[in-house]
Formats: sequence, structure tokens, C-alpha cells
Amino acid sequence: MTETLEAAAPLAIDDAAADRLFRTARSVTEWTDAEVTDAHLRAAWDLAKFGPTAMNTLPLRFVVVRSDEAKARLLAHLPDGNRPKVESAPATLVLAHDPEFHEHLPRLFPVYPGIKEQLAPAPDVRDGMARTNALIQAGYLIVALRSVGLSVRPMNGMDFDGVDAEFFADSGYKSFMMIAAGVTAGEGTGHPRLPRLTLDEVAQAL
Amino acid sequence: MTETLEAAAPLAIDDAAADRLFRTARSVTEWTDAEVTDAHLRAAWDLAKFGPTAMNTLPLRFVVVRSDEAKARLLAHLPDGNRPKVESAPATLVLAHDPEFHEHLPRLFPVYPGIKEQLAPAPDVRDGMARTNALIQAGYLIVALRSVGLSVRPMNGMDFDGVDAEFFADSGYKSFMMIAAGVTAGEGTGHPRLPRLTLDEVAQAL
Repeated sequence: MTETLEAAAPLAIDDAAADRLFRTARSVTEWTDAEVTDAHLRAAWDLAKFGPTAMNTLPLRFVVVRSDEAKARLLAHLPDGNRPKVESAPATLVLAHDPEFHEHLPRLFPVYPGIKEQLAPAPDVRDGMARTNALIQAGYLIVALRSVGLSVRPMNGMDFDGVDAEFFADSGYKSFMMIAAGVTAGEGTGHPRLPRLTLDEVAQAL
Repeated sequence: MTETLEAAAPLAIDDAAADRLFRTARSVTEWTDAEVTDAHLRAAWDLAKFGPTAMNTLPLRFVVVRSDEAKARLLAHLPDGNRPKVESAPATLVLAHDPEFHEHLPRLFPVYPGIKEQLAPAPDVRDGMARTNALIQAGYLIVALRSVGLSVRPMNGMDFDGVDAEFFADSGYKSFMMIAAGVTAGEGTGHPRLPRLTLDEVAQAL
């Protein structure tokens, strides 16, 4: 950013939160037997739902795969590499975007009357908006799941069309990733953390 | 999710953090005179960089628009509605994805030798991967900026091609959103919070 060596600013959250949400959190594969409960999901959504989306569209949708039957349905659409990760996880959230999000806008975005009708004849525009904003919400959801004491492993290796036919045939939602979730004892992974790009490698100040 | 009324699980972060990051955080337009410093950006990136991305690709890039000159360059590519929001903000981050992220993979993802060479002849695949993962990173970055005491206003109303020509002609990065950032006194917005969808509206347990 600059030529000076400037220290990072102090955090406005405590170190325990910064560690849990980012600094020591890992993408894990080793879970305890603890279940992912509806109460976990409810608490996580009650945080993630507040993350900002364009025109408050909130297009993220998901199914929570916990039962053996649902797990078998999901496994059928996964590549070999991701199967054991889903098999062993207490829960796997299959994330999707809702191209019909505009139906909710009269309630979610009442400051723009007519936006539902304006978007109705533009399915491609809606699909792009929904995917874009649902991906940003996936970032919020990962942080929110960690905020309720869960560890996660995001994955996007899956047969999206197959998953859509399996889980979203009626809704028309479009899957884009999975998040395995559960409780870990310790780091929950046998691998050292991979390196990251520095601020100076990703950003330029103007 | 279920027919029972189940309470949310307890949080694993303190209430102050949950409020700051999600529950009371707002998309703001009213800023104090406080600057967004390099130290803020460094501290925020030192959290956001740890958010997981597929194959540790970390494709998010951004320019930090703070100077009058840079602001004028950005304003030229914004619709009328977003101009005052950028004009008044202490800083605006212009977020982009790097379709050439594969160049960094020998360092970032050494567990998959040859992935750089495998992706090199597939620019469309790389562009899609970069956009997808940079959007998830945008979610992390918004939470991270709030974690260092900043408030934000994400926006995506902009002439992306114009912004790319203005700021990313050399790098080939592709812009996808902006985040205005600064310090607020109080909520930083005169508008009440818009409603959100409930867990039962967005999720189904299987």
C-alpha cells in the first residue's frame, strides 16, 4: 500500500472472536460426534441474514443434509474426492440462489415500488443478481456458522445440475456450493494452513 | 425448519462482536471526518485473507479510492444515485477478481502440482472461478472491515467496463462491486432497517 511499514490498526472485536472467525479457523474434515442442531442453524441465520445484499434481495437458499437418506441423495452427485468429506460431516448445507427472489421484494425492499414487476420479464438479469448476491451471502454464512461454535468446510466440487434436479426441481433454485459443518476437537484438520496473499499483493491505494 | 419452536443456540462470540459484525451493523451513508487509514486496511485484510476459497485461489483484488483525483476518476463511471455516496465516503474500495489468479497457485496451493499449467489454457474457467470466489471473499471483507471498527456501504451500481478501463487496464482485473468505508457516529443512516427473510423461508432440513 505505502512504502512505510505501518502497523495494523487495533481490532474492534476481541481476539477470541477474531481467532474463531478468521485467524485460527480452518477448513476442517475431522468432526466430533456433536450434532448440528436446528438451534445452531437458527442462531447462525439470525446473524447472516443481516449481511447486506443489493436491494435487500437475500437470494441465498439452502437445504440442510443431515439424515442418512438425504446424505445418500447428495453423495450420488459428488465427485469421489468430496464424498468422504460429506459422508463424515454431521451436516452439509447445499447452498443455492433463488432466481425468483423478486417475488419477495415488495416486502423486502418496499422503498422501490414496482421493482418486482420490473424484474419479472428479465430472468437472466435475475439469475445473475441472485448468484452474485447469494455468493456474498455465502461469505456471511461461513462467518456466522463459525460464530455459533461450528467449524466448516466449504466445497464446490459437485454436479450442480444433478443436485438441482435432486433437491431443487420444484423451487427452481440453482446450487453453487456446499458447506460441511460440525463441531471439531482442536483444529479439525491434519494439514498446515496454506499461505495467503499479502495486502500489498491484492490492493493498491490511490 | 421444524414444527417446534426451538430457541437459537448460544453464540460462541460475545454480543458486542455479534452486534458490530451483523446485528446492529447497517449499510451507511453518514460518515465522520475520520480517515480510513492503511492500518485499517492492513488489519482488515489480515482477517479477511484467512476466509476459505476454492483451492486457496484468493482471487479478490481491490483499489482503495481516497484521494480527490482517484475519486474523480471513479465518479465518472457511476450512476447518479451512487455518486453522492462515493463523494461523501472517506474511502471506497473497488473490488475486482483476477482471472490470472492461477499464476499464484504454485505458492498458494502447492498440494496440487501442475494446477497452474492445467488452468492456463482455460481463461473462461478461470474467469468464472475467480468471480465466484472473489464474491465469497467480498462477504469476508465486509465482515473484516467491520471488525476493525469501520462501517461500510456495499454498492454494485457502476459501469463495470468503464471502471475496468480506468483502474484495471494493465492488470486485467474485472470489477464487480464497491464498498464505501469509514467511521460513523451512531447508526450512520437515517433509514430504518429493512426486513429479512426467516430461516424457514430460506432453508429446508432433510
